[in-house]
This record gives sequence, C-alpha cells and structure tokens, in this order.
Amino acid sequence: MDILKDRIRKEAKIVNADVLNLDSLLNHAVDPQLTMEMGKEFARRFSGEPVTKVISVESSGIPIAFATAYAIGVPLVFARRKMTLLNESDAYCERIPSFTKGIVTDLLVSRNLLGPDDNLLFIDDIVAGGDAARGLIKIIRQSGARLAGIGIAVEKTFQAGGRSLREMGYRVETLVRIASLQHGEIAFED
Amino acid sequence: MDILKDRIRKEAKIVNADVLNLDSLLNHAVDPQLTMEMGKEFARRFSGEPVTKVISVESSGIPIAFATAYAIGVPLVFARRKMTLLNESDAYCERIPSFTKGIVTDLLVSRNLLGPDDNLLFIDDIVAGGDAARGLIKIIRQSGARLAGIGIAVEKTFQAGGRSLREMGYRVETLVRIASLQHGEIAFED
Repeated sequence: MDILKDRIRKEAKIVNADVLNLDSLLNHAVDPQLTMEMGKEFARRFSGEPVTKVISVESSGIPIAFATAYAIGVPLVFARRKMTLLNESDAYCERIPSFTKGIVTDLLVSRNLLGPDDNLLFIDDIVAGGDAARGLIKIIRQSGARLAGIGIAVEKTFQAGGRSLREMGYRVETLVRIASLQHGEIAFED
Repeated sequence: MDILKDRIRKEAKIVNADVLNLDSLLNHAVDPQLTMEMGKEFARRFSGEPVTKVISVESSGIPIAFATAYAIGVPLVFARRKMTLLNESDAYCERIPSFTKGIVTDLLVSRNLLGPDDNLLFIDDIVAGGDAARGLIKIIRQSGARLAGIGIAVEKTFQAGGRSLREMGYRVETLVRIASLQHGEIAFED
C-alpha cells in the first residue's frame, strides 16, 4: 500500500535495528483519512469471507480495526489487556509477553462477545514477535469461533511474528512489509 | 442522542448503583455505524471551533474520538496509559487514579504531538469522576495547546466528573445523560 509506505518513509523514526517508532501515524497519533483507506483495503482483500466481527487488541490496533469493521459493516470487538472492575469474571483470558513493553499482560475477551457462530477477521497495526496475536488466537479457539484471516498494517518480516502465524495455517495480509531496520535505514520488501 | 439512548436501554447492564457495563456497545465491542454517527454529532456541535486535533485517552474512547476526527478531517492523538519502550522520554506525563480499575496509571503524550498552535477537542466514551479528563487537561496545559471543548458520549450526572469540568470553564457536550442507576433502573436525564 503505497500511501502508507510513503508516510512511513516520511514520519517513522528508527529506534534501533528491531524497533520502529510509528507514533505519529499508527501508535499514538493517527490520520483518520489514511486509516479509513487501510480499513477499505482490508475489507477488499477479505471480501470473499463472510466475516461476522472484526477483532483486535487494545490499543493501537483499534483505529485500523474500527475502520475495517466500518468498511465491512460488522461490529468491532477489542480484547482488553488487563483485569478491570468491569470484567472480572466471564472472560476468556490468556497471559502474553509484550515485545514493546517488556512485561506480561493478561488479554481478556468477554464470553458473551464471541461464540461458535462467529467468523472473525483479526486486524492489528503491527506484528513483531506475534505474541499478542497468538494469545488472541488461543482466546478465539476457546470461544469456538473461526478465525477467517489476519490483517496487519505493518509487518517486520525480519521478526518471526507474521511467518509463525502463516505456519499455523492462517491467511495473513499485510499492507507494508519491512525487511530490515539495519544501518539506520528502513528497507521495504516488495 | 436517541439512537444511543435506545441501545443503552437494550444492552447496558447495571453492575451496581455507580457502575454501568457498556461492554457490548462502548467499552469492549462497538458498532462502527453508530459510532460514526456519534462522531458526526460531535463534529456538528463543535463546528464553530477551528479544531486542529481530536485528543482522547486509550482505550475505550478511541473509536468515538476516531470517528469525530474523521468527521472533522483532523488527526487523532490518544494519550497512552503507561510507559512503554517506545516512549520513555520526551513525553508530558500525569499520574491519575482510575475509577473502574482501582489503580493509578500514568498518562503520557509525546511532546512532538501537541504544541501551542493546537486547538484541541477532547472526546471520550464516558465520564464518571473525571480523573482521566483532569489528567489530560493538565497535559494539554503543559503543552501550551488550547482545549476548545470536551465531548463525552455518556455522562453519569450523579457523579462529579462532568460538573467539575464545566466548573473549570470548559464547554462539555454529552450525547446521553444518566441521572441515576438506583433500584436496578437506568434513569435518563432530559
């Protein structure tokens, strides 16, 4: 997706050879018009699937997942990252490590929001190690729902996340693939 | 906003006299079409203001804030709730208690995302005690930006949050006002 690639070229900051700061367009600030285009693109790529809900993980995946759910015309469910007073019980739960936070968090989805009749599209902003995605997949399996596919805005192909999800048998669509952040340069994969 | 009120009547669950569970339409799952209508309504109410950015707090305010930013045609910035490896420095920071989580969290906004030229519209899903809002207002003041107004989807008027923000001199627009959750009933205020 060239418009996203152009924005990454202009605005992303390389933190180190593993971490790209996308704060100004993906993780902390978003351009709603660009994000809606990303949602339309995911809706187009998965148009052959009878998706019942889009699912994501809070927080930075929410805008793109919302835009995708809007384009398809289905609800959005987002997994919560920790226990709150509002959802102490009746939730599917998986503990996951966080690549960017250096901590473990609990991922939760209310049992009444997912079920065996659901055909889900999982949308997230970025895949690095894929821990959050694998945690969410375990939750989806617990619920009996089907995972129709996975859409990720930015895949760092030099990290194992995207590959490991494909090896699990899932269709993974990514809008931009980054092959390397070595030597202070973003190398895109085409 | 009658369509939101109807959905709350049908789907909200009263946890106790202080807490309303809006998981199925606001905090954990969202209806993108309804959310876009809420965004258009906020854009309409604040159309007299030259808003440069919409600002919110992760996570559950993000969809409505995104929809509002899309309707106005400006970027969305969302305050992060804790320190991650990606934004350890160069951030405005305020510590806030959380009404629903029973814990304190740090609220952060990157310094390069807000500045004195900004005229902000703060959008959130719900206001109870108003702690997150007051924390965000302190961050906005640190940045030198102007806060043009505050839009909240659901105000519980029997709690002090909305009133305290109005007493600070801010224009606060709420789509639905709930006067009481006593006796297992949602009493709307008109």
